[in-house]
Amino acid sequence: MKAYKIPEATVMRLSIYSRYINQLQNEGIETISSGQIAEGVGVSSAQVRKDLAYFGEFGTRGVGYKVGELYGHLMKILGLDRRWNVIIIGAGKLGSALALYQGFFDRGFEICAVLDDDEKKIGTRLGDITIEPLEVLKERVKERDIKVGVVAVPAAHSQDVTDKLVAAGVKAILNFSPRVIQVPLGVTLRNVDLSMNLEVLSYNLASNR
Amino acid sequence: MKAYKIPEATVMRLSIYSRYINQLQNEGIETISSGQIAEGVGVSSAQVRKDLAYFGEFGTRGVGYKVGELYGHLMKILGLDRRWNVIIIGAGKLGSALALYQGFFDRGFEICAVLDDDEKKIGTRLGDITIEPLEVLKERVKERDIKVGVVAVPAAHSQDVTDKLVAAGVKAILNFSPRVIQVPLGVTLRNVDLSMNLEVLSYNLASNR
Repeated sequence: MKAYKIPEATVMRLSIYSRYINQLQNEGIETISSGQIAEGVGVSSAQVRKDLAYFGEFGTRGVGYKVGELYGHLMKILGLDRRWNVIIIGAGKLGSALALYQGFFDRGFEICAVLDDDEKKIGTRLGDITIEPLEVLKERVKERDIKVGVVAVPAAHSQDVTDKLVAAGVKAILNFSPRVIQVPLGVTLRNVDLSMNLEVLSYNLASNR
Repeated sequence: MKAYKIPEATVMRLSIYSRYINQLQNEGIETISSGQIAEGVGVSSAQVRKDLAYFGEFGTRGVGYKVGELYGHLMKILGLDRRWNVIIIGAGKLGSALALYQGFFDRGFEICAVLDDDEKKIGTRLGDITIEPLEVLKERVKERDIKVGVVAVPAAHSQDVTDKLVAAGVKAILNFSPRVIQVPLGVTLRNVDLSMNLEVLSYNLASNR
């Protein structure tokens, strides 16, 4: 669809804008200025204009953006004009929390399967999903056309699980384990380190002391 | 400690550098160049030099950085030269997963208390912690000098819980609920939207299609 890359920080802001604009749309608001978006989400209006300019001009001078149109554009840019099937590996506390996280479904991500190698967990349910053994990985990825895999296993197993996801045909990996993992070219990887979020806070607390 | 603000993306990279450098330190390595750091964590060496330059020059030309010294500097900058006490509100799947997340403790964050208003949960244990009622919030924050609060409650309650944390004296809030919440000046807030991580992946998948 696009031949160039935009910065990840921009992608994350586009995600924030899209949520805010969806909220406005639900309130029946039809047009909005970059200044109003900026105020609503807490960034500068120059930043909003710069971010939206990556994708060409949607707004009309002096009128602003049509809310419905802008929302559609943003969702398309984010790849959210379709649904994505997701598989989670690891049904521990974190994997279970992720499997039941309503926010994923709301944004177009459907958790299709949760796999674990713990026999005590296999066969038990998380909402509508029955936990299955790792052996069904390839089959589930194929039959449900799963493109996204979530790694929620202990660090010692994360590379092995990632290799299996890639071999099964998954194209994007979200890694929650606190370990650097490798993926081949053509597979996109994102590491979520939950403690890094706390470190941004401790930096702020420390720099104000 | 510092009078200026550095970009959040830099803070997050400093966190990544510090983990890598800690790993090198454990392997007995004594000096490292910005190029080696860059290669180890997957950013450009110009970026590494730029990030470290925010805090003055620690390296020696042609020799590089002393690993132990650089690690100490980074941890001090991140506010991790001390431990931080943390309270979690909400003992659902996500709150429980966070309470048991070893990565927090490893980086200096100690979960001191987990509160919930569900009578079925109060009195049950998460590792070493017994879940307590919301009523003990002020008391726990005071007696344990808690500066950081984690909000892991449903969206409908997140602002109310945040207000209570602020009133109890917490100075930094990590919000996992998918809702925009407000904090007064002097309190630092960070929103963690787990689905935003998936959206960075769907953006990548969509832009390659």
